[in-house]
Amino acid sequence: MYDFQQNLSQIQQRINAFMETQFDDIHASGSPLAEAMKYGLLLGGKRIRPFLVYATGSMLGADLNALDHAAAAIESVHAYSLIHDDLPAMDNDELRRGKPTCHIAFDHATAILAGDALQAFAFEIIEKSTALSAQQKLNLVRELSRAAGVRGMCLGQSLDLISEHKQVTLAELEFIHRNKTGALLTAALMMGFICSPHYENHELARRLKRYAEAIGLAFQVQDDILDIEGNQAEIGKTVGADLNLDKSTYPKLLGLDGAKQKAQELYQSAVKNLDEISFDTTALRALAEFIVHRKN
Amino acid sequence: MYDFQQNLSQIQQRINAFMETQFDDIHASGSPLAEAMKYGLLLGGKRIRPFLVYATGSMLGADLNALDHAAAAIESVHAYSLIHDDLPAMDNDELRRGKPTCHIAFDHATAILAGDALQAFAFEIIEKSTALSAQQKLNLVRELSRAAGVRGMCLGQSLDLISEHKQVTLAELEFIHRNKTGALLTAALMMGFICSPHYENHELARRLKRYAEAIGLAFQVQDDILDIEGNQAEIGKTVGADLNLDKSTYPKLLGLDGAKQKAQELYQSAVKNLDEISFDTTALRALAEFIVHRKN
Repeated sequence: MYDFQQNLSQIQQRINAFMETQFDDIHASGSPLAEAMKYGLLLGGKRIRPFLVYATGSMLGADLNALDHAAAAIESVHAYSLIHDDLPAMDNDELRRGKPTCHIAFDHATAILAGDALQAFAFEIIEKSTALSAQQKLNLVRELSRAAGVRGMCLGQSLDLISEHKQVTLAELEFIHRNKTGALLTAALMMGFICSPHYENHELARRLKRYAEAIGLAFQVQDDILDIEGNQAEIGKTVGADLNLDKSTYPKLLGLDGAKQKAQELYQSAVKNLDEISFDTTALRALAEFIVHRKN
Repeated sequence: MYDFQQNLSQIQQRINAFMETQFDDIHASGSPLAEAMKYGLLLGGKRIRPFLVYATGSMLGADLNALDHAAAAIESVHAYSLIHDDLPAMDNDELRRGKPTCHIAFDHATAILAGDALQAFAFEIIEKSTALSAQQKLNLVRELSRAAGVRGMCLGQSLDLISEHKQVTLAELEFIHRNKTGALLTAALMMGFICSPHYENHELARRLKRYAEAIGLAFQVQDDILDIEGNQAEIGKTVGADLNLDKSTYPKLLGLDGAKQKAQELYQSAVKNLDEISFDTTALRALAEFIVHRKN
């Protein structure tokens, strides 16, 4: 009987241990840089992106040790993006997961550099894998670099910043999130696919991509819903207060019930794409379920 | 008769035109991100790193169009590092090459994201080359990611920041500069080598690397010398005033004459390594000359 929480927890342990080893031959030379990178990379996080790499790759017959490098690379990019997002010039957050953000725990310049170095680290880790062919590694580089940059995550982040205090349409909101968070979640899945023996099956790639896009958006919709329902339970703030905030959200554009329906539709769409895949999709199905039913 | 300035100017035109085309299929979607990236990448610069890629690759028989991607990739990394270095939390510069820095011309958040996206862009460009083998492209990824990150440029920048207002030894100063600027200059040369038909000649790689390390350091020593002599000519500031600044420099540690001698020794060492290479090293020789004799 498949247990999602147990599987996620196994993956968290595996990827954390693997990422720790990637720092073994890095010498600090009196600089706080490596410590700040580790701080950003290793202090918590659900490891959803590594989960997607391992779950997809395992489903398609890849060895776990052929997946470690891809999983660590995408988590490094995710970690760098959080460090930079938290900076005063961006979201100006002093806490993440209950701990001081990188620029608070270290300093502002070190946080910028730690993010920068984590991005380079991601590509360095991919190249080092001995379990993948040169072509597979290059496909990983392509997938990750495109998803991270001006066609993906950075574009989404930029659009998100300029969308504040401004009315956006539902289509614009979706475009922002498809880039800001969706691009990297989709890349995680595709990286698992690339590491598998089926990496040249384009029809399979297309199904997986559609699944990934649906859960990526569902993740954001659910985040917006939790912002309201979580706050209500926690500090008694009314839904109306959230809806009046300047920031565009799915509940603001669709209403709370409309947003919940949207999350359900995306879940159904994700599962429908899995139905047409002739592998054991149990783990990916459980993840989709987790994403729309999670409470934090 | 070889004309260095003419060669440099040809290379500047070629790489600028090539980099411009890399933005052709990028759609702004209402975000200033792509514009900020172009601003950082295309507004001036000597293009020393692309010169090293083209000069080395051409010397070793690579076609120019097998070198374009490597040259654009390393210049993208260099451009991102300048954008981030200029940020208020780092060097806090408002002008570069006489023009407003990226965070002044755009805004602080956009400058952070433009730097981030330019780094991803570099790896994306390498992967796209159709003139190189998969193994060559992976070697480029390795060279560039190592040189850019916690084992290279980011480490040097971090050490440089913490060395301010602090006494450092000559060995420490060299370690900082070998990482901060030397790593990327060496990578540029090695990337030209990797794109050539001789990319598996390890002895040749070793010679080229020693040449690169010498000119990389010479570049920094000459920079420090120009800081003093340039200022003297320009605003009549005395040498003593510069030597009393908190920042460690070669003239401060070695005296002005000592620094000039150091630059000469590094030049001789660079040229000596070229003497043992059985290819036409005219362009690399001229570059070494340019580095220690330039006046700005």
